Amino acid sequence: MLRNKTALLRPIGVIRSALKSRTNAPRQGSEGAPDAWLEIDPRVEDALRGLAAGDEIIVITWFHRSRRDVLEVYPRSDRRNPLTGVFATRSPDRPNPLGLHPVTIRAIDGRRLCVGPIEAIDGTPVVDIKPVLK
Amino acid sequence: MLRNKTALLRPIGVIRSALKSRTNAPRQGSEGAPDAWLEIDPRVEDALRGLAAGDEIIVITWFHRSRRDVLEVYPRSDRRNPLTGVFATRSPDRPNPLGLHPVTIRAIDGRRLCVGPIEAIDGTPVVDIKPVLK
Repeated sequence: MLRNKTALLRPIGVIRSALKSRTNAPRQGSEGAPDAWLEIDPRVEDALRGLAAGDEIIVITWFHRSRRDVLEVYPRSDRRNPLTGVFATRSPDRPNPLGLHPVTIRAIDGRRLCVGPIEAIDGTPVVDIKPVLK
Repeated sequence: MLRNKTALLRPIGVIRSALKSRTNAPRQGSEGAPDAWLEIDPRVEDALRGLAAGDEIIVITWFHRSRRDVLEVYPRSDRRNPLTGVFATRSPDRPNPLGLHPVTIRAIDGRRLCVGPIEAIDGTPVVDIKPVLK
C-alpha cells in the first residue's frame, strides 16, 4: 500500500559549516554547536520573503551520510542504555534521515542565512524552513 | 550543484483520520483538530520500541495534496496579510511539503498509535517520528 507512495525531496539549500565530519559534530545544537551559513538555491529565493534576523526557525535537513536500514540503537551510542527504536530517539540513522534544527537567524545576506547553533555538518542538504509557532 | 542531490522519501506509515479533506481541516493541531491513528508499516515496527502512551512526539508527514511550485502566499489565505515567502509560514504548499505535528501519544495498539491533536487528513503519508527533546 505504501510502497508506491514514495516522494522525491529536492534540496532547497545547503549547510556551509566549519563542522566537516559527523565524528566531531555535537549531537544537538544546544551541545556547543557553532553557527553556520545556509545557502539557499536561487530558484526558491522568493520563499525567504518575510524572514528577518532574530527570527526563530526550524531548519529541516537531510542527513545524507546516514544509514537508512537502522531501526534500533543504543541512545547516545552508549551500550549501558537500553536498545531503543529510532523513532524514540534523535539518531540520525533512521528510515528517512530528516534532521530538525531549531535555530535563530543571526543575519541575512541576500539568499544566505547565518543561523545557529546548529550541529549539521558542512554540505548537508536543507529541504525546508519553517517559522517556530508562538 | 543541488540538482543531483535529490533523495527518495519512503513513507513509514499513514494517518487514519476522520478529517477527509484539506478544506475542512484546521490549520494547526491546536485549532480544534481531532486525534487520529497512525498506522506504522510492519517493516519498520521495531523502530517504535521505547515509545509509550503519554509521550510527546513530533510526527513528520508529507502533504501529498500540496503544490510544490508555490513560493509566496497570503498567510492564512487572507489577502489583508502581506505576501509572504512560504519559508516564513506554515503553508502546506511549499517546495518540499513536509508537515511537523507536535502531538501526544494517547494509546499504542501494536503498530498503531493514537495521537493528537493532529490536523493532517486521512491518507497522509508519515515519513518520520521523533521524540520532543526536554
